[in-house]
Amino acid sequence: MNEEVIYLDHAAATPVDAKVQAAMQPFFSDDFYNPSAPYAPAVRVRREYEAAKQVIARAIGAKADDLVMTAGATESINLAFSSVTGHVITSNIEHHAVLAAARRHEVTFVSANEKGVVSAESIKAALRPDTQLVSIALANNELGTIQPLRSIAEVVHHERQRRLQAGDHTPLHLHSDASQGVGQLDVNVARQGVDMLTLNASKVYGPKQVGLLWTAPSVQLVPTIVGGGQERGLRSGTENVPGVIGFAKAMELASAHRKFESERLSALRNAMQEKFTTAFPEAVVSGDLKHRLAGHLHISFPGLDAERVLFALEMRGVLVATGSACAANKGTRSHVLTAIGLPAEVADGSLRITLGHLSNEENIAKATDIIIEEIQKEYARSQK
Amino acid sequence: MNEEVIYLDHAAATPVDAKVQAAMQPFFSDDFYNPSAPYAPAVRVRREYEAAKQVIARAIGAKADDLVMTAGATESINLAFSSVTGHVITSNIEHHAVLAAARRHEVTFVSANEKGVVSAESIKAALRPDTQLVSIALANNELGTIQPLRSIAEVVHHERQRRLQAGDHTPLHLHSDASQGVGQLDVNVARQGVDMLTLNASKVYGPKQVGLLWTAPSVQLVPTIVGGGQERGLRSGTENVPGVIGFAKAMELASAHRKFESERLSALRNAMQEKFTTAFPEAVVSGDLKHRLAGHLHISFPGLDAERVLFALEMRGVLVATGSACAANKGTRSHVLTAIGLPAEVADGSLRITLGHLSNEENIAKATDIIIEEIQKEYARSQK
Repeated sequence: MNEEVIYLDHAAATPVDAKVQAAMQPFFSDDFYNPSAPYAPAVRVRREYEAAKQVIARAIGAKADDLVMTAGATESINLAFSSVTGHVITSNIEHHAVLAAARRHEVTFVSANEKGVVSAESIKAALRPDTQLVSIALANNELGTIQPLRSIAEVVHHERQRRLQAGDHTPLHLHSDASQGVGQLDVNVARQGVDMLTLNASKVYGPKQVGLLWTAPSVQLVPTIVGGGQERGLRSGTENVPGVIGFAKAMELASAHRKFESERLSALRNAMQEKFTTAFPEAVVSGDLKHRLAGHLHISFPGLDAERVLFALEMRGVLVATGSACAANKGTRSHVLTAIGLPAEVADGSLRITLGHLSNEENIAKATDIIIEEIQKEYARSQK
Repeated sequence: MNEEVIYLDHAAATPVDAKVQAAMQPFFSDDFYNPSAPYAPAVRVRREYEAAKQVIARAIGAKADDLVMTAGATESINLAFSSVTGHVITSNIEHHAVLAAARRHEVTFVSANEKGVVSAESIKAALRPDTQLVSIALANNELGTIQPLRSIAEVVHHERQRRLQAGDHTPLHLHSDASQGVGQLDVNVARQGVDMLTLNASKVYGPKQVGLLWTAPSVQLVPTIVGGGQERGLRSGTENVPGVIGFAKAMELASAHRKFESERLSALRNAMQEKFTTAFPEAVVSGDLKHRLAGHLHISFPGLDAERVLFALEMRGVLVATGSACAANKGTRSHVLTAIGLPAEVADGSLRITLGHLSNEENIAKATDIIIEEIQKEYARSQK
C-alpha cells in the first residue's frame, strides 16, 4: 500500500493480514491437492481444511459441522434465504444482499429508528403466522449501529414457543449477517441467540470471496449449488483450501486482538469525531453513539457536496467513503440515510469514515486536519 | 511439493503456477481495495480486474462483457441450469455437478458409447419441443474423451432454426463444461458453437474456487446469488480480485504453452500406456483413443483391486486416482465406467492417471516401473 495513502474505508475492504497470507501460502502450490482425493497428501489437506473450520467455529462458539463455507457473505445470505418458503422480515437499512434476497419472498421491511436501531418491538409487530425468517445484521455497515440482536432473538424465540404450544410447525429462524461486526465485537452464536449467522473473511483482514453460513441444527438448508456433495451436500465445489485456512487465521487474530483493537479504534475515532464537531458545530453524527462499532464514524455536513470532498481528499491521499461501496459507485443516495430520515441536504453531505488496522494516532491526526481543511474549502467555495 | 512424490492426478487438482501466484500476490495486501469504491486506488483495482477478464475472454474468443465470474465450475454449472425452466438433455457420463443440476429439471440422460463418446445423433433423438438446454462437457474428466461438440452444436442450431421458422420461441442452448479440456485444447466459443461455457481456474494451474460462465448474448441468465449487483447483476458479491487476476495469468500461460505441452504430455502418456499394455496384455485402455486429452490415461487391469494398488503406490510416492476425486472418497464405483459398459471386475481394477506440469520424462519412467511392479505384486498376491 502506498505510504502516503491514509485509508479510512475499512468497512469496504480490508488488506489481507501478513500472517493470514503466510498461512495461506503453502496451500497454493505445495499442498494443492484436492481434499476429496484418497491419497495421504490429499487427506492431510482435508484435515488442515477441517481444522481451519474448527478454528473458525470455536471463535463464534459453534461446531464446525454446522458451518457451510461459501464464496463470501453474499452467497451465504442467499443460501440462508433459499431455505425459506414463507414470509420474511428484515429492516429497511440492511445490506443490498439481504434486501435483494428478501425481495424474492413475501417480505415486511421494518423501519429502523433515527439512530439506525431496529427494535425488537418492531420485529414483534411485523411477525405473521407464516413468517419463517427474520434477518437483521449484527451491525449496520454504513452507520456502525449495533443492533439489539439479543432482544430480537427473544421475540423470535417466544413466537417459536407459542407456535410449538399451538401445535403449529411453521419454522421460524433468526439470521444475522455479522460480517461487519465480527472484527470488533465478540460474536457468539449462543449468546446472540441467532439460528443462522453470516461471516465474511474479507472484512476481518482475510481473503475476498471467502465466507460462511452457520446454522443451528434445527435449520433445514436447501442447497443452491449442487454437485460433488462438499460441505455436507449443502454447497458443492472443490473446497477453497487456502481461502478457508486464511479465514481461520484471520478469525484467530481477530479474537486475540479484539479487545485491544476495539479500545484503540474507538479512542482514535472519538478524538476525530470531537475535532469535527468542534470545527463544524452543525455536523450531524449518525448512528447509535452508545452502541456503535469502534472504528465507525458516519458524519454529515449539511449543505456540503460530499462527492466533491471525497475527490479533494483523495488528491491529498485520504480515502473515505460517502456510503457503502456498492451504492457509492452507482452515484445513488444511500437507502440507509433515507431510511433513518436524514434530510437530503444532510445526507448528501455525508462521509463514512471507518478505521481499522491501517489507522494509527499519527495518520488519523493528519487525516483529521486534512478533512477539516477540505470541508472548510468546500463550504467556502459553495458560499461564494 | 515433496520431491519424492510423483503426482499423476492433474485432473483432480493442479498446483498454482508460480507466475500465477506472483500475479495474485499484490492484490491481497497492497491493492486490496473494494473494486466498487470510488477513489482512484480502488478504480485502478477495478481496471485491473476488468483487464483480467479481457485476457480470459480473449483466450476463448469471447467478450469480457459476456463473462460471469463464479466461485469455480460447480457454481458456473448451477448458474447455467438455473436459467432454464423446461426439459434438459445431458449424458450419463457427466460430472456430478451437471448430473445434480440436471436432476432439478425434467431431464433425459443420453447414453455415451463404449468409448465415452456422446454422439450428435443421440442428442438429436432426445430433443423434445420443450427442450431448453443441452449440456455436454468438452472432455470427460475420467476418460479424457473429447466430445464431438461441434456436431452437437449443429444439431442444436438446426433445432433452433426449425423452431424459429415454426414461430416457436422456446429457447434452446448448448452448454459445455470445458474445465477439464481448456488446458490442453484450444477452446473457442464460436468455433465450438456453444451458447454457454464453464471454465475452472483450478484445472489450469490457477487458484481453487475461481471459475466463470460465458454466455452468448442470446442467453437470459437468472442470477442465483443476488445483492450488490456485481457481474452485471448476474452474480453479486465483492469480486475475487486476486483470484480472477490469477485465473487470467493461468489462461495466458495455458494459451502460450498449449501446443508444446499437449505434444509433450501425449508423448509421455503414450509411452506409459505402451509399457502397461505390453506388461499386461489383458489391460483395457478406456476412452476414445483418437480423441482424448493429451495427459489422460484411463486403464483397467481386470481382476485387480485398484484401491489396494492405489495405496501401495502411495507408499512409494506415486499418486494416482481410481476415478474422479468426489467419487473416490465415497468408495463408490464410478458412474462413468458403469455407463460405458465396463464389467464390474474390469471397472474395479481401473486407474485414472493424469499427467500435467509436474510430469517429466524421468518421473514418468520411474512411475511407470513402480506401477507395473505394484500391479504384478497385487496380481501375484490375489492369485495365491
